[in-house]
Amino acid sequence: MGTNEAIEALTSSLGQRVSRSKSDLEVHGASETHFAPMPPDAVVYPDCTAQVAEVMRICAAHRCPVIGWGTGTSLEGHALAARGGVTVDFRDMNRVLDIRADDMDVCVQPGVTREALNTELRATGLFFPVDPGANASLGGMAATRASGTTAVRYGTMRDHVLGLEVVTATGEVIRTGTRARKSSSGYDLTALFVGSEGTLGLITELTLRLHGQPEAIAAAVCAFDDVAGAVAATNDAIQLGLPMARIELLDRASVAAVNAYAGSDMPEVPHLLLEFHGTEAGVRETSETFGEVAAGHGGRDFEWATRPEDRSALWAMRHNAFYAILASRPGTRSLVTDACVPISRLSETIKATQEDFAHHNLTGPILGHVGDGNFHAVLLFDENDTEAVTRAHEAAHRLVERTLDMGGTATGEHGIGMGKMRYMAREHGGGWDMMGRIKHALDPDGIMNPGKLVPPTN
Amino acid sequence: MGTNEAIEALTSSLGQRVSRSKSDLEVHGASETHFAPMPPDAVVYPDCTAQVAEVMRICAAHRCPVIGWGTGTSLEGHALAARGGVTVDFRDMNRVLDIRADDMDVCVQPGVTREALNTELRATGLFFPVDPGANASLGGMAATRASGTTAVRYGTMRDHVLGLEVVTATGEVIRTGTRARKSSSGYDLTALFVGSEGTLGLITELTLRLHGQPEAIAAAVCAFDDVAGAVAATNDAIQLGLPMARIELLDRASVAAVNAYAGSDMPEVPHLLLEFHGTEAGVRETSETFGEVAAGHGGRDFEWATRPEDRSALWAMRHNAFYAILASRPGTRSLVTDACVPISRLSETIKATQEDFAHHNLTGPILGHVGDGNFHAVLLFDENDTEAVTRAHEAAHRLVERTLDMGGTATGEHGIGMGKMRYMAREHGGGWDMMGRIKHALDPDGIMNPGKLVPPTN
Repeated sequence: MGTNEAIEALTSSLGQRVSRSKSDLEVHGASETHFAPMPPDAVVYPDCTAQVAEVMRICAAHRCPVIGWGTGTSLEGHALAARGGVTVDFRDMNRVLDIRADDMDVCVQPGVTREALNTELRATGLFFPVDPGANASLGGMAATRASGTTAVRYGTMRDHVLGLEVVTATGEVIRTGTRARKSSSGYDLTALFVGSEGTLGLITELTLRLHGQPEAIAAAVCAFDDVAGAVAATNDAIQLGLPMARIELLDRASVAAVNAYAGSDMPEVPHLLLEFHGTEAGVRETSETFGEVAAGHGGRDFEWATRPEDRSALWAMRHNAFYAILASRPGTRSLVTDACVPISRLSETIKATQEDFAHHNLTGPILGHVGDGNFHAVLLFDENDTEAVTRAHEAAHRLVERTLDMGGTATGEHGIGMGKMRYMAREHGGGWDMMGRIKHALDPDGIMNPGKLVPPTN
Repeated sequence: MGTNEAIEALTSSLGQRVSRSKSDLEVHGASETHFAPMPPDAVVYPDCTAQVAEVMRICAAHRCPVIGWGTGTSLEGHALAARGGVTVDFRDMNRVLDIRADDMDVCVQPGVTREALNTELRATGLFFPVDPGANASLGGMAATRASGTTAVRYGTMRDHVLGLEVVTATGEVIRTGTRARKSSSGYDLTALFVGSEGTLGLITELTLRLHGQPEAIAAAVCAFDDVAGAVAATNDAIQLGLPMARIELLDRASVAAVNAYAGSDMPEVPHLLLEFHGTEAGVRETSETFGEVAAGHGGRDFEWATRPEDRSALWAMRHNAFYAILASRPGTRSLVTDACVPISRLSETIKATQEDFAHHNLTGPILGHVGDGNFHAVLLFDENDTEAVTRAHEAAHRLVERTLDMGGTATGEHGIGMGKMRYMAREHGGGWDMMGRIKHALDPDGIMNPGKLVPPTN
């Protein structure tokens, strides 16, 4: 591979948009979680599609690896330069290009973050609902098929990307999808690129579906004696078709961490945090119905609120839960799991996981997007204690195996990156080889984010 | 290609499941619409996945074309044997394998029809909402990425297929997706096969998402002075987030046809037919709000009903509209268009289309899934009148071009088949070549439904 030749050519073409500074390489070689640094050989900051295409043509000519970069908030090391090469940072492609309120869609560059988009949308009466917690870039969210707390109502990135502009591995610019709401025209290339983790091309523009800001929002909180009760209440509410915009589980350990962090005084038992979107009458009806459903499964202390300040307090608690958990054991590192199972198996999966952690003397508070069957255990360990690190990784491994035994997936929303490659063969069987054939057809030299997602070719 | 050798080998392996009878070949060489017959050389009726895999292995060995067949209700000639070969009819793979009410999903064989599935589901409190009108097979609906009247609320097949079992072009059996509600694990192979029209593999099992039967259903009908008012009311209702389960436009000519056919007496102006699903209070609130929204755009004679018999009468009218239109000109043939545009362009697209038909002296009543921006013109012509046939096809062509000019798609829900191939290059540009590369990677000998969807290779 001619990485150095590629970087020389890039520098002569794009000048100061190419960086080889130590700090740039360090930032782009690090991840938010437990992976060892893997810096690229250079970072490029294009500011338009034509520049991205130029980067790709140069890198393709020299067979130099190319890695896309949004905000670096991936939890699985997606954007680490496993084979070196050039990282394309979309920082400067951060424009909201076209808000089409009548069609409830928007065209954005990949570096726009979800918070920046929602700020721009505020006056339109529309919003973009996908909320993975981090203020991630929309290009990165599409590339990892992200979701988060609102998926139970609004769906994931899969449901929100109407179309893409993509620079292919050869530097060609293509468009997938149209501005129509649905289409039966040909292979769903949009869906193929959503979740492809930069291994098939670089996303340079996204057309996203928007929703009307709800007339009324109610938030609610409900305590349960055990996780099983909380999950059973969730299931019943879903079966009833209650339109819940968010339904989040905090297990006992998470509640304890939140109390300690935020000075709150929730009873130290599992809780559901909920949000309902609709009309004034609708959210009242839904909240009350949910309260009745919850009571049938031991739910108590059910409270709901429509005042913005009360709602904000509740969701600040949820959004800070991850930091609260980290703060509960100062100086520790974390490993965040991402199991997603059929909802009928959620309760037993969480129970078995908690028992496994207890048996191995591990701390791993659990947060769950329970309406989707998705939950995260935040395993805490001292990174200098090799034995503890091993125990945490082994427990995370057993959790994935348990999840696959239950008919679930190794990753509900965080993606494969470096962290879940070892499960691809088991989860997909012959489908993984099929992914490899598709990859080879679209990126024959294997320069797009090499070392990720598809079976190794050598 | 060794089609005869393949059929000999199939016959010795599968015996009476292979047919070369004239009537079988005729049935499987015909389509519901205006395409010339293209019979296969044999028809196979497998009754399990292993037999489908055996068929594929034999056909692959002899490079014999293989075409999947559900109920033959495609409108674009998807299942015509353009290059001869073997048609695999899934008639005998019609079992509902596993209803998992707790997870609100179901596992079915591809030959199960949507009505058969809903009959089996009746006692569970669940239902499968995708409704293209025809009682199509679920395998066929997945293969064409079908949708229909309920897509505005529930989405299309894309949103309902959680996973698939597929027999590949080499006879390998793979599974895509899991039973989890969402996943970020690898390329979305499920989405790639949904809408692939049998060109990448044969679907032998589907895991489908279900919904709870709504507590209450209200149907409504509303008259408008013009299509623009009906579309504007639709847009406003969508912007308000009103949960409409169906919102269907009948233009003046369609209403006239329905009146004549069913003896009804709707005013001969454009109408919206609606359905709302929810709680008793919810559907009342939604119906009343919609009435107000409609009134703001000249909507009148707004009536809504929750009694099943009233609702049934309304939807029987809509479902019979196609036959009513055909009956309005006895002895004529039809050509059904399938434009889908951004909603902001729907009104002008329909208006331009009506003007074009009038200018060319064509009869083409319009029915629309207006919540999706999708509408069908049913062009009627005497098939013995060559000049009229040409005029109808030219008008349909201009409609597609107009649709693409508006940022829409050549097909909202009917698919490509034989009918829309000529628009692939314009709609997808370089993306069409990318489809061809994917096809070649998964079916290098080009035996899966050849002549369809991807660019011709010779």
